[in-house]
Amino acid sequence: MGSSFGHMFRVTTWGESHGGGVGVVVDGCPPRLEVDDREIQAELDRRRPGASPLTSARKEKDQVKILSGVFEGRTLGTPILLLVQNVDARAADYEDLRDVYRPSHADFTYEAKYGIRNWQGGGRASARETVGRVAAGAIARRLLIRECDTEIIGYVRSVHTIEANVDPEHVRFQDVEQSEVRCPDREASRTMIELIQDVKESGDSLGGVVECVARRVPPGLGEPVFDKLDADLAKAILSIPATKGFEIGSGFSGTRLKGSEHNDPFEMRNGRVRTATNRSGGVQGGISNGESIVVRAAFKPTATIAKMQKTVSRDGKITEIRPRGRHDPCVLPRAVPIVEAMVALVLADHLLRQRAIGGR
Amino acid sequence: MGSSFGHMFRVTTWGESHGGGVGVVVDGCPPRLEVDDREIQAELDRRRPGASPLTSARKEKDQVKILSGVFEGRTLGTPILLLVQNVDARAADYEDLRDVYRPSHADFTYEAKYGIRNWQGGGRASARETVGRVAAGAIARRLLIRECDTEIIGYVRSVHTIEANVDPEHVRFQDVEQSEVRCPDREASRTMIELIQDVKESGDSLGGVVECVARRVPPGLGEPVFDKLDADLAKAILSIPATKGFEIGSGFSGTRLKGSEHNDPFEMRNGRVRTATNRSGGVQGGISNGESIVVRAAFKPTATIAKMQKTVSRDGKITEIRPRGRHDPCVLPRAVPIVEAMVALVLADHLLRQRAIGGR
Amino acid sequence: MGSSFGHMFRVTTWGESHGGGVGVVVDGCPPRLEVDDREIQAELDRRRPGASPLTSARKEKDQVKILSGVFEGRTLGTPILLLVQNVDARAADYEDLRDVYRPSHADFTYEAKYGIRNWQGGGRASARETVGRVAAGAIARRLLIRECDTEIIGYVRSVHTIEANVDPEHVRFQDVEQSEVRCPDREASRTMIELIQDVKESGDSLGGVVECVARRVPPGLGEPVFDKLDADLAKAILSIPATKGFEIGSGFSGTRLKGSEHNDPFEMRNGRVRTATNRSGGVQGGISNGESIVVRAAFKPTATIAKMQKTVSRDGKITEIRPRGRHDPCVLPRAVPIVEAMVALVLADHLLRQRAIGGR
Amino acid sequence: MGSSFGHMFRVTTWGESHGGGVGVVVDGCPPRLEVDDREIQAELDRRRPGASPLTSARKEKDQVKILSGVFEGRTLGTPILLLVQNVDARAADYEDLRDVYRPSHADFTYEAKYGIRNWQGGGRASARETVGRVAAGAIARRLLIRECDTEIIGYVRSVHTIEANVDPEHVRFQDVEQSEVRCPDREASRTMIELIQDVKESGDSLGGVVECVARRVPPGLGEPVFDKLDADLAKAILSIPATKGFEIGSGFSGTRLKGSEHNDPFEMRNGRVRTATNRSGGVQGGISNGESIVVRAAFKPTATIAKMQKTVSRDGKITEIRPRGRHDPCVLPRAVPIVEAMVALVLADHLLRQRAIGGR
Repeated sequence: MGSSFGHMFRVTTWGESHGGGVGVVVDGCPPRLEVDDREIQAELDRRRPGASPLTSARKEKDQVKILSGVFEGRTLGTPILLLVQNVDARAADYEDLRDVYRPSHADFTYEAKYGIRNWQGGGRASARETVGRVAAGAIARRLLIRECDTEIIGYVRSVHTIEANVDPEHVRFQDVEQSEVRCPDREASRTMIELIQDVKESGDSLGGVVECVARRVPPGLGEPVFDKLDADLAKAILSIPATKGFEIGSGFSGTRLKGSEHNDPFEMRNGRVRTATNRSGGVQGGISNGESIVVRAAFKPTATIAKMQKTVSRDGKITEIRPRGRHDPCVLPRAVPIVEAMVALVLADHLLRQRAIGGR
Repeated sequence: MGSSFGHMFRVTTWGESHGGGVGVVVDGCPPRLEVDDREIQAELDRRRPGASPLTSARKEKDQVKILSGVFEGRTLGTPILLLVQNVDARAADYEDLRDVYRPSHADFTYEAKYGIRNWQGGGRASARETVGRVAAGAIARRLLIRECDTEIIGYVRSVHTIEANVDPEHVRFQDVEQSEVRCPDREASRTMIELIQDVKESGDSLGGVVECVARRVPPGLGEPVFDKLDADLAKAILSIPATKGFEIGSGFSGTRLKGSEHNDPFEMRNGRVRTATNRSGGVQGGISNGESIVVRAAFKPTATIAKMQKTVSRDGKITEIRPRGRHDPCVLPRAVPIVEAMVALVLADHLLRQRAIGGR
Repeated sequence: MGSSFGHMFRVTTWGESHGGGVGVVVDGCPPRLEVDDREIQAELDRRRPGASPLTSARKEKDQVKILSGVFEGRTLGTPILLLVQNVDARAADYEDLRDVYRPSHADFTYEAKYGIRNWQGGGRASARETVGRVAAGAIARRLLIRECDTEIIGYVRSVHTIEANVDPEHVRFQDVEQSEVRCPDREASRTMIELIQDVKESGDSLGGVVECVARRVPPGLGEPVFDKLDADLAKAILSIPATKGFEIGSGFSGTRLKGSEHNDPFEMRNGRVRTATNRSGGVQGGISNGESIVVRAAFKPTATIAKMQKTVSRDGKITEIRPRGRHDPCVLPRAVPIVEAMVALVLADHLLRQRAIGGR
Repeated sequence: MGSSFGHMFRVTTWGESHGGGVGVVVDGCPPRLEVDDREIQAELDRRRPGASPLTSARKEKDQVKILSGVFEGRTLGTPILLLVQNVDARAADYEDLRDVYRPSHADFTYEAKYGIRNWQGGGRASARETVGRVAAGAIARRLLIRECDTEIIGYVRSVHTIEANVDPEHVRFQDVEQSEVRCPDREASRTMIELIQDVKESGDSLGGVVECVARRVPPGLGEPVFDKLDADLAKAILSIPATKGFEIGSGFSGTRLKGSEHNDPFEMRNGRVRTATNRSGGVQGGISNGESIVVRAAFKPTATIAKMQKTVSRDGKITEIRPRGRHDPCVLPRAVPIVEAMVALVLADHLLRQRAIGGR
C-alpha cells in the first residue's frame, strides 16, 4: 500500500518487471490539458534500455497506450491510465535466482516483508517500474509548462569520482542529450564513458550523482510543516531505486559554511524580490521562493555485477552467485529522465495544492 | 494542508512560535500502551532552549499536558492531544521584523504563499513547532520499544568542518548526553564547543550533520514503491527546519565505490540472514533488512546571525537588517532529539502498516 | 486512526467526554479569512447542553479558545487549534458503568476494538466530541460565505411520527431558532415539544429526522467516482453519533417513482442552466448542479433511557441496568448545528478541491 | 482526484464507457492470497449487461485480465491491475447527445466541473465504471473469507412499490441468483419482473432498494469518529451511480420507535456477547459488534427513458430529447453485485486497519 504519490496530482504505478506489463494511473490532472502520446513516448524512449552500449541489453519498445482519461487529445479530468506491455521478458534468465538472495538487491527484503516474491527480473523492485513514473511525469511537465512555463532539466553531475562542471542556471536540454551519458560537460562526459566501458568489461559497476534543476518555479509552492516542497522532493528522490542520498541547494557542503557565508541576501531584480545567491536551492522554509530549484540524487553502484559474490539461499545455506540477466553497469544516464519525472510530479502536485488555497 | 505526517500512526502538529501554544494530535496509536508524561517531558527537556550557554536564551519550560487519548496511564486508541503553552513569548522583540524579510528565513516565502504571516519569532516556521514532533516521538519510541525493542540514538556527527568518529552500532545514549553538544566523541565534542563559542561571540553561526541510528528494527518495514522506508525517512528529515540534505547508509560517499566494493554480502548469523557489511544502511529496495538503520541529516548554519545583512522590505525597498531576538548559534545539539523523533515516527508508522498486511 | 475528515479542508477532532477537554485542528483553511471567535462561540452555544429543559442537564459553557492559526483576526493558512476545556465532568456518575455494557451504546464495541475504554460519560463515543466539529464548521461556513455566499440551514423534519411541513428553498434561520426543538413548522414544533416532555417523564427517548439545505452552492463540486459530493455528505452524516440513515433529494421515496416522474428537466432561468424540479437534491453524477442541496439524517432514539434494561457485564454475567448520568430524551434539536457543520465541512473541502483543478 | 477508495485496502478505478477499457488497481491487498481469475470473472458476469431481457442490450463479455500483482496464483502484496477492454462501444449511438444535457444524468455537471466531457455513453459517469469495483470486490471477498469467513449477500428488497419479504439472517445466495431480478422472495420476484417488462415497453423506468447483509463480521471493525464503519459504508453506497439513500439496521423507520423499543439488549450466546435484536444493523458507535451488518441502498429510477423530455443544449437553447442508446429499465438486478462489492471493499479495508492497531 505504497504505490501512490501526490496529494492532488496523484499517480499510482503498478507492474512487475516480467508480468503482463507496467503502467500508471494519473488521478487529479486538471481537465483540458493537451496530451500528446508522442510526447509521453519520447520521455519513455529516453528511459528505455537497449538504446546505448552503456545500458542493459534488454530490448523493450516500451510502447505506451492511453486507455482512459484523454478524449480528442485533451484530458477529461478523469483518471488517465497509461499502459506499457512487457515484451522482451525472459523469465528463464532468472530461474537460478528463484531461491537465492542477490546482495544489495531487494530479494531478501521482499521475501521478509511479503513471504512471497516474483523472482523474475526483480519483480516489483525492478527499475522497470519507473516506466509509469516517467510516463506520468511527461503529463506533469506539460501541465507545468502550460501553467507557469516551468522547465525541468536533469543531468549526470558525477560518475564515480569524475565530477562534471555544470551551471544549473544555464544548462540546456540539448547539451545533456547529445552526451551518451547525459553529462553536459563534454570533457567529463568523455571520461565517464571511458570509465563505464572499462568497468563493464571487468564485470563491475559504478554509481554517481544526478543533478536536476527546475527553472521558473512560481514562489509559494510547498505545504509546511511536513509536506514542505523540499521534504516531498526528498521523498520523491529516495523512492527511486538505488538512491542513497538527497541534497537541495548547498546540501551537505553547506554545513561547512558559516551563516554569514551561507545566507542568501534578498535584492530587487526586475521589480521582483530575488536572492543574490541561491544556496537555498529555491526553497526556504519548505516553500519555493521563485529561484531555480536545484536538487541532487546519489545513486549507488548497480547492485547487479558479473563477479562472484557470497550470499545465502532461501533455506539459509551459504552459497555463491554470479547473476546473469541483463543490467546496466551504470544507471546514471537512464536515471536522468526518472529524476526529472519525480521532480515534475512533486511540482505539479504542489501547484494544484497552492491553487486550492487561493494562490496563483 | 501539510501539517500531518504518517499513514497509520499519524501526527498533526499545530502552533506558532508566539501564539497561544504549540502541540500535536497523535491519531492511530495502538491502545493499551503505557504512556508516562514524565517520559514525554524528558524528551521535551532535551529539545528545550535555555538549557546551555550554547543555545537560545529563550526560557520556555515546555510543560506538556495530555488532554485526551490517555486513561489511567494507558492509551485508549483515540487521538492523543499534547499541549505546551507558550510562556516566554516576547513579540516586541520582533516588532522591527514586521515588514522586512530576514535572509534565508521563511519570511518572504510565507508571505508569497499565504499573503499574510505571523512575524513574531518566525511564526509557524519557527523550530518551536518541533515541540509537537518531539512529544509525539516519545510515544512512538515507547511503542517501538514495546513491540520490537527498537532503540533510536541520534548524535552530532559534525559541526562545520569538525568530524566526529562514532560507531553507530555501539554508540550509547549516555555518551551522547554527557556532551554539551551531543557528540559522543569526546575530543571532537571539545573542539566543537570551542568553535561554537567563538562563532557565537563573533555573531555568526554554524551548521553540521546529525547522524541517527535505529537498532533492532524488524525486517519487512517499508511500502514500495513510493512509501519506501528510506523515502519516508528522507521526507521526515527534510521536513525539519534548516535541513538541506539526507543520506542513508553509504550516502553520497557510496557513489564513489564500485559495485563489488559497495554490495553487502549476505551471511548467516545466529540462525538469521544478516549482511556482513551495512552500506545499505538497513534498507534494501525500500524495506528494512533487519540491520541497523543509519541516516544523516545536513543542517545549514543558523540563518539568524547578529551581523548586518542586506535584504528588502515588504514594499520592495532595499534595506539592512541585524536581527535581535534569541537564537542558537548552532542548532545541532537541539536538533538531535528532533531527528530521533522523526525517525521514531516513521518506524512506528511502518510497523503498523506492516502489521496490517499480516506481518509481525 | 479515523479522527480526520476532509482532503484539503481537513479537520481532526480529539477529546473524550470526561477528559481534559475536546477540540479540533483545522488544517488547510485558506489564509486571510476573517475568523471571529464570537461566531464560533455562537455555534457552540447552539449545540451546548443545558440550554433547554428538553436537553441534558449537563452544564458546560463550552468556551472556545483559539490557540493557533489565527493572527490579528485572520487565518494564517496554518493549522487552527480550537480548544474547549471540560468543566462539568462528573465521572462519579458513571462509576457503576465501568464494567457493564449499556444497550445500543458503544461500550461493548469500544471494548471489543481497543481492549480498553474510558467509561466516563461515553468517552470518545460521547456526542461531546462533536464540539470540535461544530467549531470547525463555523470556520467552514465563513469560508463558504466569503467565496460563494453559500447558506446552510438545518432543522428538525420529524420527531417520532410527527412530520413537519417545511420548504427547503425558503426556510429561514430565525424560524428555526425561534422553535425550542428547531422545527420551523410552528404547529409541528408544538406537538413535538409536548411529545418530548411526555417521553422524558416516562424515562424513555425519541428519534427523528434532521433535514439540511445548502443554498447557492456553485455547480461543479464533487470528485467522482468515489469522492462524489453526495458520497462525502453521506459519510459526514453517518459519522454523527446516533445516525442510522441518509437521504439526498428524493431519497428512499424516490424509489417509488418512475423515471418520467423523477427526472429533473433542464431549463434556462436568468441565463443559467437550471432544473425545473429538484428531486436530485442538488447533486447529479456526484457533482453539484447549482440547485439547493437537500439532505436528511435519520437519528435513532437516544440509547440512554431511565428504564431498566437487560444487558451483560464485562465478565459475561447477565445483569440489569438503569443508567443515571445526564442525557437528552431527544437529540434532534441539538443535532441540527452538528448536521449543518458536517455539511459545511464537506462543501468547504470540495470547494478547495475544485479550485485546485482550475474551477472557480 | 476522487477515484480511489480505502485507506489500507485501496482501490483506484479508471476508464470511460467508450474509451479503451475500464479497470482497477488494487493496492494494499495482503500477500499470498489465492486469487483465481475465474472467480473475478464470475462476479463480472453477474454485473454484465445483456444477460437478461430485463437489462441493457449492450453486449460486453467483460473479459478480465490480471496484468500485475499476482504470481503463480497468489497475490504478491504489490498493486494488482485488473483490465477489461471495451468491445461493443458504439459511440455513434450517442452522437446526438454531444451537445445536449440528458435530464438527471451527469452531462451538465461534468461539463460544469471540467469544461469538457466524453459524451459517448456517459463517459466516466457511466455505470460501466463499476466493472473495476466488482473485480476488486471479488478479491476483497476472498480476503474476508480467508481471514474471518465473512459472507456477503445482496438482493433486491423492493422495486417501485413492490416490497419483498426477506430475512437477512438466513437468505441464501442461490435463492437470490435463481431470480431474474435477484429477489429471493419468489412471489415478489414474479411481480417485479412483470412490472419491469410493462415499464420497459412503455419506455419508462423504475427504481428500488437493494439490501445487503454481511454475516460473520468480526467485532471491532470501524475507526471512529469519522471513519466509522457505517460512515464508510454510507460513502461506499452513495458512490454507486443512481443511489439517493442509505440505511443501516433500523434506518429511517427506526426514528419512529422509542428508545425502549429500539435498544438492542445484550445477552450471552455460546459464550459470546450478542444482542437479542439487531436494530443497530451490526454497528454500534461506528464499530462492528459481531452481529450481521445489514444495509440498504435506494436506487432512483433509471434516468435514461425512451420518452420525450424537455431539456437544454450546451449553448443554452431549449430543446427536447429522446435518448437512444442501450439502457436498463431497472438497474436493481445488476446493482446487487456492485453493492456487495462496495460492502466487501469497506470491510476488507477496516479489517486491515484493525489489524494495524493490534486487533485480530
